[in-house]
Amino acid sequence: MSAGPDPAVADVRRAVRRWRAEHAPDADLAVAVSGGADSLALLAGAVHEVGGPVLALVVDHQLQPGSADTAEAAARAARGAGAQARVLTVRVVGSGGLEAAARRARYAALRAAAAGAPVLLGHTLDDQAETVLLGLGRGSGPRSLAGMRPWDAPWGRPLLGVRRAATHAACAALGLHPHHDPHNDDPTFTRVRLRHEVLPLLEDVLAEGVAPALARTAAQLREDCDVLDAQAAELLSGALLGAELDAEHLAPHPSALRRRVLRTWLLAHGASALTDDQLRWVDELLGAWRGQGGVSVGGGLVVARARGRLSTAPRRQTS
Amino acid sequence: MSAGPDPAVADVRRAVRRWRAEHAPDADLAVAVSGGADSLALLAGAVHEVGGPVLALVVDHQLQPGSADTAEAAARAARGAGAQARVLTVRVVGSGGLEAAARRARYAALRAAAAGAPVLLGHTLDDQAETVLLGLGRGSGPRSLAGMRPWDAPWGRPLLGVRRAATHAACAALGLHPHHDPHNDDPTFTRVRLRHEVLPLLEDVLAEGVAPALARTAAQLREDCDVLDAQAAELLSGALLGAELDAEHLAPHPSALRRRVLRTWLLAHGASALTDDQLRWVDELLGAWRGQGGVSVGGGLVVARARGRLSTAPRRQTS
Repeated sequence: MSAGPDPAVADVRRAVRRWRAEHAPDADLAVAVSGGADSLALLAGAVHEVGGPVLALVVDHQLQPGSADTAEAAARAARGAGAQARVLTVRVVGSGGLEAAARRARYAALRAAAAGAPVLLGHTLDDQAETVLLGLGRGSGPRSLAGMRPWDAPWGRPLLGVRRAATHAACAALGLHPHHDPHNDDPTFTRVRLRHEVLPLLEDVLAEGVAPALARTAAQLREDCDVLDAQAAELLSGALLGAELDAEHLAPHPSALRRRVLRTWLLAHGASALTDDQLRWVDELLGAWRGQGGVSVGGGLVVARARGRLSTAPRRQTS
Repeated sequence: MSAGPDPAVADVRRAVRRWRAEHAPDADLAVAVSGGADSLALLAGAVHEVGGPVLALVVDHQLQPGSADTAEAAARAARGAGAQARVLTVRVVGSGGLEAAARRARYAALRAAAAGAPVLLGHTLDDQAETVLLGLGRGSGPRSLAGMRPWDAPWGRPLLGVRRAATHAACAALGLHPHHDPHNDDPTFTRVRLRHEVLPLLEDVLAEGVAPALARTAAQLREDCDVLDAQAAELLSGALLGAELDAEHLAPHPSALRRRVLRTWLLAHGASALTDDQLRWVDELLGAWRGQGGVSVGGGLVVARARGRLSTAPRRQTS
């Protein structure tokens, strides 16, 4: 130990240190622990940096036989890393697919158990790269490419700049024994195929360093989007006339800002599943106004312009 | 013909019609023609839409034996599509790799021959998707993901929303016989591997429609970048004090805007190969000022803050 900690351990600790300094200097910390290498390495880093009690939260989704044993093993590993540990047993119910329902139940339980403290999540640079690729496939624009945020209260992600390989190396160096989740090799999950097939091919074709490049791009896009979203929020508040929008006020602004204003305004009026094309058609009521009729958007709404204002109305049923 | 033109032919014509209406309603048009399906279909669409003379420009790079014959065949095909045609013979010289030198020579010859008219290029939606993936690999941020522009005088790209399959179908329907460039199958080109390996795998893993999703994302990013670049240009002109920058003027603005200002300013002072990290370190002289020393950036410059101003100086050689 006189030579200092293993480089991977030092990487993880430094990432936690920087995250705390920037986002939550004096807060108590909770860490969501699955028992895998990412969350165990993060937990060990947090214990080292905080120098006081850190709360490890292990969720038992009760979806597989033996899940209680797995959760208990993760809690033991967490205690071995120097943390207090609690197992949160949840019931996964509701619509939208099992994965989505499990995520909802997990996040609700973690939020409640942390009681206001930041909950650190073990997402790494590699997870961020996979998230960007998933967003690319959706084609829903800069927002979906911007990936996960380092801090989105109560969720903190200190490891978004740390490679997955480093969390595994850190666990090995610290004598921690992470659980291997068989789901991580199951190619029926899109994310697993991105990890094992798409990213290696991209590395081979484009040059090494694709995952860091994707993560770096995500960070820049997030900052760009934040700037434009803030400007759009200000523009919206200046253009609102009750439930309607002042078209003359919006028209001189760039379409990229106007479409952000329209998106927020339409979602607040019950629109859903808005497409890029729909927003562009509505935007033509501002930027290319020539007396055209109303525009239908997702959620059963029609947007129309009259007397210099945009308003929404329910789409009439055709019989 | 009474049933109207083939759907692919109609797609190409509509794309040319919209491009002209938006960007160059009354201009004479030139079309860069390689003899491949994309440029021949574009040329036929332009001839149909303009209804008058269209100038096809064929470049002979003189890099392969028989290149003059290939160029003459492309010119014949262009005349067959109803255009006037000229072969431009260029000499490819200079640094930076053969591909880059050939592109420079080609673009210079096309620009000169068009004599101020827009030069239409046959890049399709699929080319745009490949360009976005190339940009992803570079990790140079939103700018490199934004892809090719529909209009960047004198270059016009009417087909950025048209699939490559449609240009092939249009040629077949019109009885045009495109040249097949063997380079398009040569896996030593990154772009060819993106086309034949990466995009099909992404379609398989993520769902169909990845190429349109990439092209849609590129269009949104381009508009976002244009808005932020315009704001940064205005901010820069307000912050310039001779060759220096007013740090107090810049500090309250978001880092995403400040880094754009710094990038433009540094490039004007001879910086080169600026990385995201370098820009962030320089930006800390504005946003996280604590008396720190100068920051070295690419191109042998050091940026330092003194008396509320940023200035550049050549980096001193260490002996």
